[in-house]
Amino acid sequence: MTDLDFENWTCPLPLRDTPSIVMGHGGGGAMSAELVEHLFLPGFGAAAATGLGDSAVVTAGGARLAISTDSFVVKPMFFPGGSIGDLAVNGTVNDLAMSGATPLYLSTAFILQEGTALSELARIAEAMGAAATAAGVRLVTGDTKVVDSGSGDGVYINTTGLGVVADGVDIAAHRAAPGDAVLISGDIGVHGVAVMSCREGLEFGTAVRSDTAPLHGLVAAMIATGADLHALRDPTRGGVSASLNEIARAARVGVDLVERDLPVPPGVRDACSLLGLDPMQVANEGKLLAFVPAAQAGDVLAAMRAHPHGEDACRIGTVVSEHPGMVVARTALGGTRVINLPIGEQLPRIC
Amino acid sequence: MTDLDFENWTCPLPLRDTPSIVMGHGGGGAMSAELVEHLFLPGFGAAAATGLGDSAVVTAGGARLAISTDSFVVKPMFFPGGSIGDLAVNGTVNDLAMSGATPLYLSTAFILQEGTALSELARIAEAMGAAATAAGVRLVTGDTKVVDSGSGDGVYINTTGLGVVADGVDIAAHRAAPGDAVLISGDIGVHGVAVMSCREGLEFGTAVRSDTAPLHGLVAAMIATGADLHALRDPTRGGVSASLNEIARAARVGVDLVERDLPVPPGVRDACSLLGLDPMQVANEGKLLAFVPAAQAGDVLAAMRAHPHGEDACRIGTVVSEHPGMVVARTALGGTRVINLPIGEQLPRIC
Repeated sequence: MTDLDFENWTCPLPLRDTPSIVMGHGGGGAMSAELVEHLFLPGFGAAAATGLGDSAVVTAGGARLAISTDSFVVKPMFFPGGSIGDLAVNGTVNDLAMSGATPLYLSTAFILQEGTALSELARIAEAMGAAATAAGVRLVTGDTKVVDSGSGDGVYINTTGLGVVADGVDIAAHRAAPGDAVLISGDIGVHGVAVMSCREGLEFGTAVRSDTAPLHGLVAAMIATGADLHALRDPTRGGVSASLNEIARAARVGVDLVERDLPVPPGVRDACSLLGLDPMQVANEGKLLAFVPAAQAGDVLAAMRAHPHGEDACRIGTVVSEHPGMVVARTALGGTRVINLPIGEQLPRIC
Repeated sequence: MTDLDFENWTCPLPLRDTPSIVMGHGGGGAMSAELVEHLFLPGFGAAAATGLGDSAVVTAGGARLAISTDSFVVKPMFFPGGSIGDLAVNGTVNDLAMSGATPLYLSTAFILQEGTALSELARIAEAMGAAATAAGVRLVTGDTKVVDSGSGDGVYINTTGLGVVADGVDIAAHRAAPGDAVLISGDIGVHGVAVMSCREGLEFGTAVRSDTAPLHGLVAAMIATGADLHALRDPTRGGVSASLNEIARAARVGVDLVERDLPVPPGVRDACSLLGLDPMQVANEGKLLAFVPAAQAGDVLAAMRAHPHGEDACRIGTVVSEHPGMVVARTALGGTRVINLPIGEQLPRIC
């Protein structure tokens, strides 16, 4: 891939210098990263762990544990294929799973707006219970706050998860290495389009339903192959673009994609065309990206395809030593394009 | 205490039957408890641990761990003596400490309203960093969501903490037993009045500053006496009333207080008189209640008074086998009154 001038390529925008929070700071893209790097980390100072990633692997009482936290503010709270309750459980379960952890316990904290219907809250609680049971995690502690009408928006849920990481499992973004195959577990963009279609009252021909699902079982099946899984990521906010860019930067490697190999289902393609969205930037809630040595990719793909959440798994690219920190796609026309880390928020309030 | 007709005493209100969330559901009193008991626990079903208390002690990877979660929505975000950042760290550290845990790690999750000044957020992050450093905990993982203007209210923070519980430490509400002395670590009602004075632009003669502080050091000093600490609770929302009632109910014991022994500082007394509040229902953020066998109370009190966060520790009551589940105070006039679990929210958005 030599038709891009990598030497003179720069980040399309410098650091944003706004005096206040804008929606983009919550998009999981460049602005979110800047907020962590330039505000939270300096503010937290010595108390902060480096990076403050989606999950942390720590040691406590001699145990090797993964911790992950996520707040959910999706709007609307119910959408085709799921609800904020499903997301709140599966999202945190998946962040733990991406460290190779076996999820065990979740805390649940609610910020409720005055006036929220108890019947809606009960539906959400039931969805959380069902999702937790399906994922085999226990809801062990909780908190409820209520904010006055006008100071909230229905239901916000935080879940924080605790899991155990087996000895020998070392899955981290920085381990992605040249020669790795880049795999995806199935169709992309489905969750974001499902929420968007519901929110905007749009119809895209085919009904698109959220892919919300717990992925730790799929990860366990991948680990069981004995392959050396280098990095895993569930491409939620900011989509596949954000996740691939984060891994490329963390590992200081390049990622080369073959654009036509990206599994974009027709409903997502149509919706994105209509709305001017890039499917690679649309959120997923039941998919994972895996970076594994190419020689082991066949075994891992076979294990993924044998699992209900990985039936459509496929290879979409390769890690290279060229253009470190950058993700480049070979287009259908034979050219190449840079897949940037999304700047801000393409679809706000998507999870 | 025989001048009350315990046989015919009933809870002042039956279960509330509102169709929607009201502020009281977030007050840490009876309505909060009802929401957990009648909505969250049935909704979560088999996935829920019994009780869903302020913290849970679990086993993971062979380690004995405490987990606690809290969201903070205090308004205003800065108040005399502290900020939402201090509360977010100390509040969760304290919930862990009340299980006898040594707090180790916190996750931090922000829900930010579009338009929040970055300078305010930076001040909050600095307060969190300083509080975490002071408490000796690390901020290891995080999340940021942004909601549109009108759908949030500045900054909401969730922290979830993980700590280690030493073998042999068994501190739990249900262990309170007849013959226990009930101790408090210092003046009550300070935090609530500090926030309220700031919010309403009131002045109460003396400046009242929040008591926000981490209490695990104090707890460690109490444990080090070798006393058998039965139960600990930091009386935040719902104040001393709520905490004592919860422990009385969990342990099926009665609590007898001597009202004049309650340490209510003049600023709090004046403010409560003016506003018609009960100091026992006002939130504290740097105090604890301890239930210890009376024979060990002297040693424990001495250890508390030797610690900066327990200098004014004193005994306020006794656990009895009569009137189980009820808290009764002997008044200055020699009568008795029932200290009820607060129903809803006396001072909303206090933490």
